[in-house]
Amino acid sequence: MLIKYGVSAGFASLGSAKNCMLASSAVLRRQQFLIRSLGGYSDHTNQERMQEIRSMSGTTLEADAENVLREITPVLDPTRHKGQAGKIAVIGGCREYTGAPYFAAISALKIGADLSHVFCTKDAAPVIKSYSPELIVHPLLEESYSISGLEDEEKRHISSKILTEFDKWMKRFDCLVVGPGLGRDPYLLECVSKIVKHARQSNVPIVIDGDGLFLVTESLDLVSGYPLAVLTPNVNEYKRLVQKVLSCEVNEQQAPELLKSLAKRIGGVTILQKGKSDLISDGEIVKSVSFYGSPRRCGGQGDILSGSVAVFLSWARTKRKSVDSPMNPTVLGCIAGSALLRKAASLAFENKKRSTLTTDIIECLGRSLEDICPAR
Amino acid sequence: MLIKYGVSAGFASLGSAKNCMLASSAVLRRQQFLIRSLGGYSDHTNQERMQEIRSMSGTTLEADAENVLREITPVLDPTRHKGQAGKIAVIGGCREYTGAPYFAAISALKIGADLSHVFCTKDAAPVIKSYSPELIVHPLLEESYSISGLEDEEKRHISSKILTEFDKWMKRFDCLVVGPGLGRDPYLLECVSKIVKHARQSNVPIVIDGDGLFLVTESLDLVSGYPLAVLTPNVNEYKRLVQKVLSCEVNEQQAPELLKSLAKRIGGVTILQKGKSDLISDGEIVKSVSFYGSPRRCGGQGDILSGSVAVFLSWARTKRKSVDSPMNPTVLGCIAGSALLRKAASLAFENKKRSTLTTDIIECLGRSLEDICPAR
Repeated sequence: MLIKYGVSAGFASLGSAKNCMLASSAVLRRQQFLIRSLGGYSDHTNQERMQEIRSMSGTTLEADAENVLREITPVLDPTRHKGQAGKIAVIGGCREYTGAPYFAAISALKIGADLSHVFCTKDAAPVIKSYSPELIVHPLLEESYSISGLEDEEKRHISSKILTEFDKWMKRFDCLVVGPGLGRDPYLLECVSKIVKHARQSNVPIVIDGDGLFLVTESLDLVSGYPLAVLTPNVNEYKRLVQKVLSCEVNEQQAPELLKSLAKRIGGVTILQKGKSDLISDGEIVKSVSFYGSPRRCGGQGDILSGSVAVFLSWARTKRKSVDSPMNPTVLGCIAGSALLRKAASLAFENKKRSTLTTDIIECLGRSLEDICPAR
Repeated sequence: MLIKYGVSAGFASLGSAKNCMLASSAVLRRQQFLIRSLGGYSDHTNQERMQEIRSMSGTTLEADAENVLREITPVLDPTRHKGQAGKIAVIGGCREYTGAPYFAAISALKIGADLSHVFCTKDAAPVIKSYSPELIVHPLLEESYSISGLEDEEKRHISSKILTEFDKWMKRFDCLVVGPGLGRDPYLLECVSKIVKHARQSNVPIVIDGDGLFLVTESLDLVSGYPLAVLTPNVNEYKRLVQKVLSCEVNEQQAPELLKSLAKRIGGVTILQKGKSDLISDGEIVKSVSFYGSPRRCGGQGDILSGSVAVFLSWARTKRKSVDSPMNPTVLGCIAGSALLRKAASLAFENKKRSTLTTDIIECLGRSLEDICPAR
């Protein structure tokens, strides 16, 4: 059993630090009681965790993630038709990596999106298709080795054909996820850069993870100043990004401030910094999600997260059109995606312990969302 | 828990509107009671739904779908041999789409057909085969890209070879499903046009869905005047069909009349218009199926429907040879297919809620049919 309701249950901006401190002392007492009653990993781990929460509570505030999930998840309405609950596309999957794009795309469906596409290389497509008939998989991208004998002009022609084909689809999507299992082939990354530019011109939101973050760290102008870009770095990806953009090292003591500066410096993109607690900032506010979670670190959980953020972000944008929400839909999407993954991971871990795999966590996404936000 | 017994439990033609109104008031009271006791989506949704049912009950009548299912489903008889409970072929599956033909073909088997074939492109075949060893998958069709270097004459030769090969199989099938995951490649569609023409000459029933509807909307003469053709359009496909054939827009207030006119104008084909309530017409009568259903709109449910209609239509035709039924077997097949999908979708949704996927619904087909029409 892991920690529920990590810090507090209210929204607040960084400015209201004093209030946070006051509010959090009662909350912390309650938490300590809860943790004692529920039993955590170990006393030692709990003490460390509480220490961490205390040191954070003066500078940032835990998001009320369950409320965010309830706010943005649309009511299921039988008058709606296919596609209206979300159409997501994952750009990723190459000769080496096929699991990551599958995890991202299937997670989107399991949360409630209607359609989930994958755009990958020709080699990766039959494999990703074989994982599930639910996905629409396009064998569109090319890697250097598959066009190695061609003249430069022919290569450019192929690249432009890929872009034309993708453009036919792009406007149908509510959000792109760029990066899961993309690999680092230069020809492929150049082509994906162009896809990102086109998506940006068309105002399609983009969640960037994995090798997409490698691409973006090398070419920051791809996302700089685009408010519909979400970056979801892990520890190492975050370190590289901080070094590149802020020319400094990561400082755990000032994590929220550093994240906020980073997001601001990249022109107001939203960053979800994955960790023991997830931290989220769009350069204006910082939120954390610490509840639930699992100590299991099997590969692929980041892909669940990117697919989930894509769906929730789309839902938050749709909701914003009808309700005037004070918070950026990209931030709401990150809070919801982070919380759902943490809850699903903790449910899977309760059952499977050390043998928990990413597919086990994916199987818990539906129940996790249903617990927080029942469909009926 | 969803709404059961959407409108009424009796057959009636459009002409007997007065009787329908009288009969339906008692039924509606009973329904309101049922909905209250079972708990519907929400009060608001229920009210809307009842309003809709009331406004429809003067112009059309809910089919007694459970009775239709019981009427046309053959008794399982140990003296019968393989193939006698139905042999279905799905024409679809290309480089991009492999899930859709799989869903249609496996659904046919799960309902009770003995054999289910898929005729697809060479690229799609290994993937569709990998989804299930139960299907017989023929890598027969070609897309433009795979014959791009050839002379026109060679292309014609290949097309004619494909047709000859298909002809060897055609007469063994009780029904074809044309369209799931077919794609829109011109060479492939031209070839499939010829297959449709041959099937028509051989009096093989054809259910047309997905990209098959795109083909047919462009070339109406393929099905016009063929009473064994069934079209199963969704909202957008229906809109295009109405615009093309009747040169007008879809009018929800006069949905049954419009559908009847459309079916009549295409020479008495049967049309299953998918929606919150499914409407079915062969140009002579109109029936609706509203019971059960699910608010989840994940892609692939239309493929289950096309495969199901193919099986039920075949069974209804067989039954007609022994019993003199007043209703067109294509209409009976549509009623049964629609009702079974709606019931299976509602069972799956009860369990999986927002995370319901098409494969979950397929897993509920057997139990749904068994509930209504036990094998023993």
